[in-house]
Amino acid sequence: MKTSLGAKTLAYPTPVFIVGTYDAQGKPNAMAVAWGGICCSKPPCLAISVRKATYTYGNLVERRAFTVSIPSQEHVVAADYFGIVSGRDVDKFAVAGLTPVRSDLVDAPYVGEFPLVLECKVVHVHELGLHTLFAGEILDVKAEDACLDAEGRLSAELVRPFSWAPADNAYYALGEKLGRGFSAGKALETKGA
Amino acid sequence: MKTSLGAKTLAYPTPVFIVGTYDAQGKPNAMAVAWGGICCSKPPCLAISVRKATYTYGNLVERRAFTVSIPSQEHVVAADYFGIVSGRDVDKFAVAGLTPVRSDLVDAPYVGEFPLVLECKVVHVHELGLHTLFAGEILDVKAEDACLDAEGRLSAELVRPFSWAPADNAYYALGEKLGRGFSAGKALETKGA
Repeated sequence: MKTSLGAKTLAYPTPVFIVGTYDAQGKPNAMAVAWGGICCSKPPCLAISVRKATYTYGNLVERRAFTVSIPSQEHVVAADYFGIVSGRDVDKFAVAGLTPVRSDLVDAPYVGEFPLVLECKVVHVHELGLHTLFAGEILDVKAEDACLDAEGRLSAELVRPFSWAPADNAYYALGEKLGRGFSAGKALETKGA
Repeated sequence: MKTSLGAKTLAYPTPVFIVGTYDAQGKPNAMAVAWGGICCSKPPCLAISVRKATYTYGNLVERRAFTVSIPSQEHVVAADYFGIVSGRDVDKFAVAGLTPVRSDLVDAPYVGEFPLVLECKVVHVHELGLHTLFAGEILDVKAEDACLDAEGRLSAELVRPFSWAPADNAYYALGEKLGRGFSAGKALETKGA
C-alpha cells in the first residue's frame, strides 16, 4: 500500500554540488546545491537551481560562469557549512579553511581540496518559481590524481562522494557497488526479445 | 594535483529515475533516466532530460505528464533493463514482470512495486542539445507504507535507493549516514560569526 505524502521535493539521491562563483568585487563564494544534475550529453551540460535571494544568484547573473566541486566524505562539515551561511556576510572559503582556485576556463573559483571539479559556462537560464535553473556547459572536468585508477579512469571508490537525502535531512555516503550499467538488465532483454 | 579529463558528463551521484509515460495507444512505458533532479521548491518541480530519439520523448510531448518511480536496491536488474531497450519494440513492464499503475493525478503510469513515486505534470520544456529538459511540477509523492518510519516519515534506510555513477558505468547503494543537514556545519558557522 502506498500513502500520499503531498506535493513535496522528495527524491533519492540528490547531489551535493558545491557551486563556486565570484562576486562583483572578485570575492570567491561557495554554496551547497542539491537541486541539480547533469542535463545534456551533447554539449555536456549540468543544471543547478538557486533561489534569487542567494548571493550565488547575483554572481551567476553577473559572471555567467560557475564551477561545481564535488566533496569527499571527509568534507561533510564544510559542505554543510556552505549551505548554511550566505557569502554576503562572510568569506566562506576562509572560514572553512579551503582554497579558492581560479578556473583557467571560466570566470569562477573551485574548491582546491575537493577531488572532482566541473567548470561550467552558463548557457541557459530558466525561471521556474522560487528557484531559477542555470544550465551550464561543462568545459572541463578535473580530478585529483589520487581519484584515478591504474588505467587513469575516475573511480567512485577513490572519490568517495556522498549524497543529500531531503526527506531525511541527512547526508549519506556512496555505498557498495550493486552492478554494472547496460549489463545487469541484459537477462531481461533476452527474455523480451 | 588535478588532471583534466575533458568536457564530460561526470558527476556523483546521479539518480536512477524510472520515468513512466503512456504512448498514443495507451501502452505504458518506463525508461531509466540519470540526467535529472529536483529543480524548484515552489512549485515543487523535478527535471528530467531525454533524447528526442527515445520513445519516452514522444510520450512526454503528447501527454505532458510523467511519473518518476524510484527503485530499491533489489530492483537493479529491472532498472538497468529499463535503460537498455526501447518501449517502441517491447512492453517493458510486461517483460520485467512489474505492474503499471495509472496515476490518479496525471496521465501517466508508475511502477507499482517500486517504493517511492512522484507524479508530475510537464510545465516547462527546454531544448539543450542532444537532450531536451522537461520540468514537471510534482503534484504528489506516494510512498510504500513499509518505507515510513514510526512517525510516518519517509526513511532512506527503508527505501534503500541507489544511484548511478556515469564515470564508473555502475550502480551504487546508498551507504551509511554521515551527518545531519543544516547541523554538521554549525561548528564552522560559529567560527565565522
